[in-house]
Amino acid sequence: MLSEFDLIARYFTRAPRTAAVTLGVGDDCALLKPRAGYELAISTDMLVEGRHFFHHADPTALGHKSLAVNLSDLAAMGASPLACTLALALPNIDEHWLAAFANGLYDLADKHNIALIGGDTTQGPLTISMTVLGEVPEGQALRRDRAQAGDDIWVSGTLGDACLALHALQNKLVLDSASLTQACIDLHTPEPRTALGMALRGIAHAAIDISDGLLGDLRHILKRSGMGAHLQASALPLGTVLKATQTRDICYEFALNGGDDYELCFTAPQMQREAVLQAARQTDTAVTRIGHITSASGLFLFDENGAPLTVKLNSYEHFKS
Amino acid sequence: MLSEFDLIARYFTRAPRTAAVTLGVGDDCALLKPRAGYELAISTDMLVEGRHFFHHADPTALGHKSLAVNLSDLAAMGASPLACTLALALPNIDEHWLAAFANGLYDLADKHNIALIGGDTTQGPLTISMTVLGEVPEGQALRRDRAQAGDDIWVSGTLGDACLALHALQNKLVLDSASLTQACIDLHTPEPRTALGMALRGIAHAAIDISDGLLGDLRHILKRSGMGAHLQASALPLGTVLKATQTRDICYEFALNGGDDYELCFTAPQMQREAVLQAARQTDTAVTRIGHITSASGLFLFDENGAPLTVKLNSYEHFKS
Repeated sequence: MLSEFDLIARYFTRAPRTAAVTLGVGDDCALLKPRAGYELAISTDMLVEGRHFFHHADPTALGHKSLAVNLSDLAAMGASPLACTLALALPNIDEHWLAAFANGLYDLADKHNIALIGGDTTQGPLTISMTVLGEVPEGQALRRDRAQAGDDIWVSGTLGDACLALHALQNKLVLDSASLTQACIDLHTPEPRTALGMALRGIAHAAIDISDGLLGDLRHILKRSGMGAHLQASALPLGTVLKATQTRDICYEFALNGGDDYELCFTAPQMQREAVLQAARQTDTAVTRIGHITSASGLFLFDENGAPLTVKLNSYEHFKS
Repeated sequence: MLSEFDLIARYFTRAPRTAAVTLGVGDDCALLKPRAGYELAISTDMLVEGRHFFHHADPTALGHKSLAVNLSDLAAMGASPLACTLALALPNIDEHWLAAFANGLYDLADKHNIALIGGDTTQGPLTISMTVLGEVPEGQALRRDRAQAGDDIWVSGTLGDACLALHALQNKLVLDSASLTQACIDLHTPEPRTALGMALRGIAHAAIDISDGLLGDLRHILKRSGMGAHLQASALPLGTVLKATQTRDICYEFALNGGDDYELCFTAPQMQREAVLQAARQTDTAVTRIGHITSASGLFLFDENGAPLTVKLNSYEHFKS
């Protein structure tokens, strides 16, 4: 049986491509040499089997998603990825599982130029915790507390297909096989918006990534910025499968409250509209303007006729029953 | 019931005292401003209930130990602590438990001047993953691969009392109550050797922290440095309870193979003996010279008469049965 050290050596030790990493896996600590004039952005997430992913989840997709949800946090700060660590509790050593998990993780890591520089493996209920480090020019990070009255509110990509897939997998609704396969791509292998986040430096005022649902996550921006918002429900960029298969009410509910989108929600002044669209084009990422920031507090939704719209507000929290 | 966000706000959001932290808990990422001329040292550990600590472990001690084992990795690099993140899976929200855990963690954090800058909480089997960041002047980190032939081998503190306590708690041996209480201090609330690690910069060649047992951890230094070692068993600094209660053979076995010591094992050239002792005095940390590095590979033990000594070599690995 592979020992813990063999396991790390075999699956999680690839030479870092990033010049910033001066010492990778294999010592008490990794060493990183930050660039002058940059701040480091740091984020941690934990994924637990049965809570964040299904038992017997595909290990390649899981390796991808474990890193993707963390890269998404860097994107939401406008940070460029540098390095990550992985802590992994495994019920047993399954080499096929480990090889597939490592491949999923490294494929995404290579794409976003982030180096796995350290970690820990242990026996335990399947639990994955990653920490990512990125860099952002000093003072240019996209924070949650910088939204200003009059800012446009934008989202990247589309919303709700991940939530739709989850509902289908939980047998809460029925999708045909092709629709389910399509929606599951968003759920299992989200693409972090790294390039867009970086391109929005100096353009966007505030940003957050949508992991718990648009409304819940936008509320974090509003609360920390001391602002309110008006949203145009009809402007919401609906997931293609969601739009093609569900009623208007379900579309709105999933797009507003669904978790696991890993899109960016950001605010930018009106005068930056062209710059936002330019950043989107440059990074080949769709963006949609869905409302604006108000100095009066409160989050209000309007339908296509300008009438107030009420939807259930229950963004995902890990300890809510 | 507290939501995930309330929980973080109530228990894990204290204003960082460290000037390096430019943005703490509450955004997608924390922000850190590294000092010019320093490298960042980064390490991650994961502790799982039933594997690294007992069910119903005292939460204050657990908060302490979760951070201590990570600080110990920084100490082994000669890095000074800067910031840490916490990912915590909890079966349920027990506010007494959380308050005690946070107190144990923050008490040690304050002592070592490290700021908790971010994290994640979720529902799941009790699992604690921390990542620590420290800084070390460029090129001065104490790495595992720098031991040189002729170097003295040193350890800090004493060895084996944590392992002794674990054996007693697992009913593998019997200790009187006072001895158990004393030995449990080493097991449950190890003191990371931060100050000593920093004082050894420019003096020690190689270092590692002893988490899996002296022999196993020293072997990492030997392997990465391409060296061997001779150890003098009679020189081993035995835990006071171990020495007072056990036979010579058990003393050696626990001191050589016992895990959870969180002492430093380091090598330094003979000409630095006085400097090592000076660093130890300055930081109020006992150090003991236990052998020397050889250019010939292999790890050899000798008894007080210079005769070869054989002990079981079974340093702890998390996937060995």
